[in-house]
Amino acid sequence: MPPKITLKYLATELGLSVTTVSRALGGFEDVSVATRERVQAFANDVGYQPNQSARRLKTGRTSSVGYIMNGAQGDFRDQFNTRLLVALGQALHDAAPEHDLIVTTVPEDRDELETYKRFIDGGKVDSFVVARTCIQDPRVDFLLDSGVPFVTHGRTGRADEHDWVDINAADGFLRATRHLIQQGHHNILFLNFFSDLYTAVERETGYLQAMREASLAPSSRHCPHGYASAYQVAREVLASADAPTAFVCASDIFAYGVMEAVSESGRAPGRDIAIIGADNLPPLMYQQPSLSTLDISFETVSQALIELVLAPREGVPRHRCFDYELLLRDTTA
Amino acid sequence: MPPKITLKYLATELGLSVTTVSRALGGFEDVSVATRERVQAFANDVGYQPNQSARRLKTGRTSSVGYIMNGAQGDFRDQFNTRLLVALGQALHDAAPEHDLIVTTVPEDRDELETYKRFIDGGKVDSFVVARTCIQDPRVDFLLDSGVPFVTHGRTGRADEHDWVDINAADGFLRATRHLIQQGHHNILFLNFFSDLYTAVERETGYLQAMREASLAPSSRHCPHGYASAYQVAREVLASADAPTAFVCASDIFAYGVMEAVSESGRAPGRDIAIIGADNLPPLMYQQPSLSTLDISFETVSQALIELVLAPREGVPRHRCFDYELLLRDTTA
Repeated sequence: MPPKITLKYLATELGLSVTTVSRALGGFEDVSVATRERVQAFANDVGYQPNQSARRLKTGRTSSVGYIMNGAQGDFRDQFNTRLLVALGQALHDAAPEHDLIVTTVPEDRDELETYKRFIDGGKVDSFVVARTCIQDPRVDFLLDSGVPFVTHGRTGRADEHDWVDINAADGFLRATRHLIQQGHHNILFLNFFSDLYTAVERETGYLQAMREASLAPSSRHCPHGYASAYQVAREVLASADAPTAFVCASDIFAYGVMEAVSESGRAPGRDIAIIGADNLPPLMYQQPSLSTLDISFETVSQALIELVLAPREGVPRHRCFDYELLLRDTTA
Repeated sequence: MPPKITLKYLATELGLSVTTVSRALGGFEDVSVATRERVQAFANDVGYQPNQSARRLKTGRTSSVGYIMNGAQGDFRDQFNTRLLVALGQALHDAAPEHDLIVTTVPEDRDELETYKRFIDGGKVDSFVVARTCIQDPRVDFLLDSGVPFVTHGRTGRADEHDWVDINAADGFLRATRHLIQQGHHNILFLNFFSDLYTAVERETGYLQAMREASLAPSSRHCPHGYASAYQVAREVLASADAPTAFVCASDIFAYGVMEAVSESGRAPGRDIAIIGADNLPPLMYQQPSLSTLDISFETVSQALIELVLAPREGVPRHRCFDYELLLRDTTA
């Protein structure tokens, strides 16, 4: 094992006091320029890294961005957490290679605010990315009170008070629904999350607007997010006398559950029943009809989140909003 | 915002010096038992949390376990990382609620040892869980040199020098292959990871042993992990004159790719071609035949990893090995 490169080691090797070395590395002017340069050069040569616990106490900075994932893993096919995690990590490494994304999970039955508190009081991170925001979001209330910098992925009821990056879901679902109406569909069912996620409300707003514009009767169903629950809802409504001819789904996971129920009922997705999802997940299987969907790049969103979180704001809150792209494939052919 | 509960605040409220309060909380015997109890009780009442950066300097403990995820996200359906992450988080919260699992991602093109080094030098964690081990694993070499406690999920070429938790993959794949042989199959193809993962070698060892016992000619194919690559390999071998009648797959992801190629070739999975996977993932779709697979609980493995990592060893390395359960379903009916 190589010797541990400490301040004391530097001092011994350089023939200086530990205090002088420390103040030289800190750039203090009571150390001569020549000595400062000599100490810095030697420290670089031997690969000295200041003890970060000590540096943290002094500077209050950790070079870490926190991302606390809450909830159970739920349906494993819900890839939101994994995809956002990897994209955030990549964006942070690209923008600031010396920074780390510090992630932790909070089981469903625990209070995640305790974890935020421990991260803040423990000086573990400089700032947070907060995802899957709700209209009334206790994490946002807590972080606004604490004064710690943060950026949310998704708006909240207090959106004008904090930085956020979001997708214009109302506009995306408006366009998706309008497309189905233009194709001649009148009985269009919207399958949405059963939750108080801000984006769930936005999605439904877009659908409702398109239906209202066309003087059509809206019909929404809400269920827990997952393939299985979407499959059950679709089975039920397809067996009814007034079965819809098209489904707008809040996610691709929902849409794949609907697609299976449609096939099982003897109808062909696309030819008999139109389906549009959201997220542009990789297809589950090759033999299926390809799914029409609303697409937004996790990379784009993550880069915006990292850009904002690395430069805490000094003035008014900053907002970045991205548009979905409507990808039309087999299920709306 | 409530007042920040600092040592100084405690001292003022209690009418004691900061030094006395600090030493009382530290359990030092130069403070009387009565004062220690009084300080501790008051600190508890007001919810005092010691500044962890300061405590880290003193104790060298962070109450954090590190888990560094490397590589790109690859096939999103590869749920290993998400499942292990959530199960580790749950196991740690259950065993030591005041601890945090500190996770970070390292993009594929970066040296993950730099991240280990930064976590160690920065005092960010006390210990590591290292997953997806290779036979020659530079992370294990690095951590053994560094002296930082760690437990691997999976053995390595230096397995007798470090703590590990693993699954007895050789035995599992031996039993899976034997089952197919007992069903009358002679031409059994093994589809394995194209990698130097320790478990890939173990899996193949089990398959080869079963084939040798029965004096059958083994036939292995290796490809990058993913649904698409398994589908391609299976399409190719199913079109050959000497098409296998059974597939043993190193993962369920592989097995689902094989299942689609089998269906596409006009054969029925289970009736015409037998398939066994590993991991017991939730089914992709309901209408498919259910997949026979080797099952091990992520929760069981994670609890063992956390148990070992929370109690760094003092003597010889500790090892925990779990057995797969062979779940026989439609695809081996």
